[in-house]
Amino acid sequence: MEKIRIGILGYGNLGKGVELGIAQNKDMELVGVFTRRSADTLILLTDNAKAYHISEASKMTDIIDVMVLCGGSKSDLPTQGPEFASLFNTVDGYDTHAKIAEYYDKVNQVAAKAKKTCVIASGWDPGMFSLNRLYAEAVLPQGKNYTFWGKGVSQGHSDAIRRIDGVVDATQYTIPNEEAMDKVRSGHMPDFTTRQKHIRECYVVAEEGASLSWIENEIKTMPNYFSDYDTIVHFISQEELDKNHKGMSHGGFVIQSGKTGLNNENSQIIEYSLKLDSNPEFTANALLAYARAAYRLNKEGN
Amino acid sequence: MEKIRIGILGYGNLGKGVELGIAQNKDMELVGVFTRRSADTLILLTDNAKAYHISEASKMTDIIDVMVLCGGSKSDLPTQGPEFASLFNTVDGYDTHAKIAEYYDKVNQVAAKAKKTCVIASGWDPGMFSLNRLYAEAVLPQGKNYTFWGKGVSQGHSDAIRRIDGVVDATQYTIPNEEAMDKVRSGHMPDFTTRQKHIRECYVVAEEGASLSWIENEIKTMPNYFSDYDTIVHFISQEELDKNHKGMSHGGFVIQSGKTGLNNENSQIIEYSLKLDSNPEFTANALLAYARAAYRLNKEGN
Repeated sequence: MEKIRIGILGYGNLGKGVELGIAQNKDMELVGVFTRRSADTLILLTDNAKAYHISEASKMTDIIDVMVLCGGSKSDLPTQGPEFASLFNTVDGYDTHAKIAEYYDKVNQVAAKAKKTCVIASGWDPGMFSLNRLYAEAVLPQGKNYTFWGKGVSQGHSDAIRRIDGVVDATQYTIPNEEAMDKVRSGHMPDFTTRQKHIRECYVVAEEGASLSWIENEIKTMPNYFSDYDTIVHFISQEELDKNHKGMSHGGFVIQSGKTGLNNENSQIIEYSLKLDSNPEFTANALLAYARAAYRLNKEGN
Repeated sequence: MEKIRIGILGYGNLGKGVELGIAQNKDMELVGVFTRRSADTLILLTDNAKAYHISEASKMTDIIDVMVLCGGSKSDLPTQGPEFASLFNTVDGYDTHAKIAEYYDKVNQVAAKAKKTCVIASGWDPGMFSLNRLYAEAVLPQGKNYTFWGKGVSQGHSDAIRRIDGVVDATQYTIPNEEAMDKVRSGHMPDFTTRQKHIRECYVVAEEGASLSWIENEIKTMPNYFSDYDTIVHFISQEELDKNHKGMSHGGFVIQSGKTGLNNENSQIIEYSLKLDSNPEFTANALLAYARAAYRLNKEGN
């Protein structure tokens, strides 16, 4: 069998997940991992694959079929996406929802010129969740779509807590409200406030002597991040945080509540959900499924 | 907006569902319903649409973009599918899983020659469930796929009960085993026996004076249909059956239990489920989403 030759750009959690995912797909092989760091600092898990400095990539367009871009959406992909689309078929997990159309235009312009097939914003949300929202709305046009996230860590919210004076470390879980989900599942089409859909639970390590009540208040009243939510704050030791709250589990739910019938008398519920022990490894596997698609579409001249 | 002009062949529960579904889609309009019966026996719900005898269809190829075939898989579609594929873009819900490849070949041969785009075996299983099985396996190749059906009426099993001596009427529900589903959701990948996955619950109206224990035994020991299942039998009146057990609700679950990680240490669960008040109306809406696809693909020359 001819294997799809994959390159990985970036060797963080997502890049490592892609490396593990390639080993699960018999029609794929890893050619190399590219990094902005010095290549010899990377120790790969895959035999026969090598680490390269990012500057080497442009010389390897003949031996890599798809480059999986594993950088961040904020500072890496906006430049790496268009740059690599001029050299390779690419797949990425760009996830700044509000800027996807703009990012699409940039990547598309380069890819069309270079005759490369590039898949952007894949993964699970955007990605599998987007597909499910679209399909559900196509099948049940009289309806309403609900997305709930969690239970899982929000890196952005954890970071926001860490920036508060007197906080050493923190983990924030986004938790979907079961009552709200059950209401949707029962065929109602409620309008929820932000507060009604998700709960935020925070595990915080404070400096010795810091005022816990002051920190708790700073968290709960933080605009955008917490003030619109019911927020629970637990103070724990660094040891406990490291032991129990550094995992990468996540998940979520897309529920379409639709109506059919002469007078919309019948409720029809479509629900898609994910329960993930490892968010980056699942995302990586979704990216690889799209890598196969990019490879095939490009072969067909698409 | 240019509307997609739809024809319906067959005016049973599914055909009526398609008629109602068209009214929900602003980019579609119903041209006519075709029947083998006398056309004036049909009373349509849609203004401006007419009932026609099936023999009229071949004269209307210019004014119908997609014909939705709403006949049964056993005796209607095997002949109507290929016949109409020579005249129209078509969509059907052919659901004899074991014969789909054979049916595909027959329809494909005719459609390719006539340059028509025909979608077969759409709906929810086969259909949305098939899509979800495929996507889940593509994303989680190290894993196992489980489909549970119900709670919903199985027409085949209800019919089988009705053929027993002394039975006047019957409704059979297929019920997924919650314990089995929870086991899958927890990340285990069990092998289930038929008995462990589904329960069969039967509501039976018996003739006056019939031996209820004999009927119950006939049901529970019926090969293929019931003997491999835990079967519950209730005897009720025709009045109660008509009132509570003639609904068309159905549903089901597709669960992919996958593993990722260096040593498959992480469980990843994808679950897709449907909870339908009206099975034929939901199926009809899925067919219409595919009708739009068939129309567009055909325009693109696909």
